[in-house]
Amino acid sequence: MKPIDFWFEFASTYSYLSVSRIGAVAEAAGVEVRWQPFLLGPIFAEQGWKDSPFNLYPAKGRYMWRDLERLCEGYGLAFERPSVFPRNGLLAARVACVGLGSEWLPEFVRATFAANFAQDLDVSAPETLSGILHAVGADAEATLAAAASPETKQRLREQTERARELGVFGAPSFVVGDELFWGNDRLGDAIAWARLGPARS
Amino acid sequence: MKPIDFWFEFASTYSYLSVSRIGAVAEAAGVEVRWQPFLLGPIFAEQGWKDSPFNLYPAKGRYMWRDLERLCEGYGLAFERPSVFPRNGLLAARVACVGLGSEWLPEFVRATFAANFAQDLDVSAPETLSGILHAVGADAEATLAAAASPETKQRLREQTERARELGVFGAPSFVVGDELFWGNDRLGDAIAWARLGPARS
Repeated sequence: MKPIDFWFEFASTYSYLSVSRIGAVAEAAGVEVRWQPFLLGPIFAEQGWKDSPFNLYPAKGRYMWRDLERLCEGYGLAFERPSVFPRNGLLAARVACVGLGSEWLPEFVRATFAANFAQDLDVSAPETLSGILHAVGADAEATLAAAASPETKQRLREQTERARELGVFGAPSFVVGDELFWGNDRLGDAIAWARLGPARS
Repeated sequence: MKPIDFWFEFASTYSYLSVSRIGAVAEAAGVEVRWQPFLLGPIFAEQGWKDSPFNLYPAKGRYMWRDLERLCEGYGLAFERPSVFPRNGLLAARVACVGLGSEWLPEFVRATFAANFAQDLDVSAPETLSGILHAVGADAEATLAAAASPETKQRLREQTERARELGVFGAPSFVVGDELFWGNDRLGDAIAWARLGPARS
């Protein structure tokens, strides 16, 4: 049984679906999840995109919002289209880097995605994140201070660089051993690969 | 029960998966499929792409080939990476326009995709298509002559224009009533929507 490295970006709409689902799905399958925050911005910039492709390509964007709405209905997941998209996830990603390995990380990530995609809250604001950190039992003040440190900033840069080296080009992405799976639609395949490898049916 | 309009492009890798699957899946569900050839090229060109995005964005391309290989393994579908990608699907799409409503169309489309993606044959060549037409019981000579007519060329332009109006931006796409579903991953959702509408579970 291999662990799943779960690469997510706070601004990413389809990451919201996987962030909300992966805990229960992986637990049921007995698969370990390693939460891996990173930034898509630098990776998109290399492809010549200075904004979300869902904004750059309107037909794709219109489709994505309807698709997301349908999928959330199917999953029974709360959804409200954010009034700002994409919301800057830099600070949240740095907070997640501070939380790597800590117990509160998955709940912080879930709550931050829900704040953005179900409550239309400004998750780029320190006050929003401070409230979420407090709610998940973290020391909000110390965590936000650590998030602003040079070490944390460097850590996030390294996360993004590692994602790029793994071939990640979008979010969410799942890495199991040498296999990359892209998109919320591949969560089940990633779980099956972690459990069974190439022998999965 | 609504019909599914199935929009496919002969050069599209993920269309291969849906072309191979949709007949059996839709028949089992009792859903009517209307085969809709179109060209992605003009739609991609509007987005500033003069080549397949899988060639323009190498990380995405590398992933797609591996993803396709894994999916074909899972479906038990033959696959060999084409030595030329994308292969020009213009003539095949015109032939499909000639075949709209005819009995041989679905089998012609399946055989042409298999020729491209499982046998690495040049499906842009009239000789290849002539052989396939013959094999599926069509009058190859008359069909290829009709494919070169101004009426057929205009018909294909209209198909592509209709796809664009429906919001299609990639292939395969499925349209059920007012709902657009993009990608082989959404075939099951499109079938469920055709059967149950918004009340699907």
